[in-house]
Amino acid sequence: MSSEGEFGVVAIVGVGLIGGSLGMALRRRGLSSTVIGVGRNMERLRKAVALGAIDVYSTDLAATAAEADLIVLCTPVSRIVSDLPIVLSAARPDAAITDVGSVKSVIVAASGGDPRFVGSHPMAGSEMTGVEAARLTLFQEATWAVTPHFANSIQTTDRIVNLGRSVGSEVHVMAPHIHDGAVAITSHLPHVMSAAFMRIAARDAKENPSLRVMTAGSFADATRIAASSPDLWRDICLSNRSAVLGAIDSLTKQLELARALIESDDADGLHRFFAESSAAKSEWPGR
Amino acid sequence: MSSEGEFGVVAIVGVGLIGGSLGMALRRRGLSSTVIGVGRNMERLRKAVALGAIDVYSTDLAATAAEADLIVLCTPVSRIVSDLPIVLSAARPDAAITDVGSVKSVIVAASGGDPRFVGSHPMAGSEMTGVEAARLTLFQEATWAVTPHFANSIQTTDRIVNLGRSVGSEVHVMAPHIHDGAVAITSHLPHVMSAAFMRIAARDAKENPSLRVMTAGSFADATRIAASSPDLWRDICLSNRSAVLGAIDSLTKQLELARALIESDDADGLHRFFAESSAAKSEWPGR
Repeated sequence: MSSEGEFGVVAIVGVGLIGGSLGMALRRRGLSSTVIGVGRNMERLRKAVALGAIDVYSTDLAATAAEADLIVLCTPVSRIVSDLPIVLSAARPDAAITDVGSVKSVIVAASGGDPRFVGSHPMAGSEMTGVEAARLTLFQEATWAVTPHFANSIQTTDRIVNLGRSVGSEVHVMAPHIHDGAVAITSHLPHVMSAAFMRIAARDAKENPSLRVMTAGSFADATRIAASSPDLWRDICLSNRSAVLGAIDSLTKQLELARALIESDDADGLHRFFAESSAAKSEWPGR
Repeated sequence: MSSEGEFGVVAIVGVGLIGGSLGMALRRRGLSSTVIGVGRNMERLRKAVALGAIDVYSTDLAATAAEADLIVLCTPVSRIVSDLPIVLSAARPDAAITDVGSVKSVIVAASGGDPRFVGSHPMAGSEMTGVEAARLTLFQEATWAVTPHFANSIQTTDRIVNLGRSVGSEVHVMAPHIHDGAVAITSHLPHVMSAAFMRIAARDAKENPSLRVMTAGSFADATRIAASSPDLWRDICLSNRSAVLGAIDSLTKQLELARALIESDDADGLHRFFAESSAAKSEWPGR
């Protein structure tokens, strides 16, 4: 197949929110010759075509991987790990392969040091799922991490860096374990925290129905991502286990500190607890 | 003074975000004859006049309370508690007095069962503070709790219920302890949680600067209210101590559960943890 557009024939494996949005962005910006959506549910794949997320679809992963210039794995982490060997053995020697999973070390490890694979992670998810939620602008101004390993050439890494940039993201290159440590705090912990909080609210609302009306912005913020996909977040937590456990322990310690200050009526200490947090938030960059 | 408008002469004690927005709403809707702002900082009070939040201002709490038909205490909780005796001894026998504090039991207790006082709580705060952030529409579609006690007549309670309704809020009447138990979960715990989380992120970002760029919507949500006023939240936590401690304990237990599931690689259990939260969020009403 001829390779028109910067990325030629692009195979998107898993056409949900992220995969569908990426397909849309590549197609509308003329960055691909063909976007092939790969999945197992024909009805959803047909919907992806109708929504303009992909040009054509296939249910044959190996055959599609064999004809693609760029392969992007957009499924939950456990499936990326199980699909990678199939993709790596089918793909051409000059193909570039990446994924959009929220953890990177286990996925890079699953690639076995294959020089064609460079992990990446566009931080553009949401509590919504499915190709119905896909949108052209999902990646604009989002952070997109690219996590090369020792076997990658600069050229291969650059193809994935360009992929992120070409759809409008701000790309940051970092080692897989640095990525995983950072997102354990900035993304994985908030998801665990939100789920934990929502479970408490739901349980307590049975005893005190006033909870259901006594909510404002802080409740909305604390629970938005509680609606996220259980499959996705189970996979993420188990694939980034030690960093997520460390993040949970840090939170537990901070809560113990707040608890002790409140219990002992330590007004100065509690003021400092909130003031340090408030100062940290105001010094934090942008979003 | 003549009592024009439904609420006549209204004294607003503490002209910040909430007090200023209430003054604006009363004035623009023609619900008051005069809105008198009471405070101690003349510069801020003059700014409140310039912004249209109040008609006039005073630094004499007792004298202003003596001429008002309605007195609304809009300062942090500890100041409401210390100002209440002054207001109650100065106010006319037919005056109605309320407050907008985020906790109700300690404030109702501080009113000593005075029939003129009915506690209330418009859930319309934000991480912003000061009269500069005040806006006319702050209370529209917000929840406004009114928490009468045994000595209040229906007439007095109704005046405060009407105050909330007249500025566009959805008013719910409930006992002070029911209110405090509900907001300990829906509002106070999210604030403690957000502050605790922000402290971790700031500390870990010193070791791993990637944290500062690896952020998306979940981080923004988790930290928005970390910027809230330390004075306000110290007061709230200490004034609703037992309910807030119980809420922190509930969260710690949920985090321990998540931790155990992740550590033991219990994929089914962890899926259930997230799935129950996701189901609870989708069944939760509105905002």
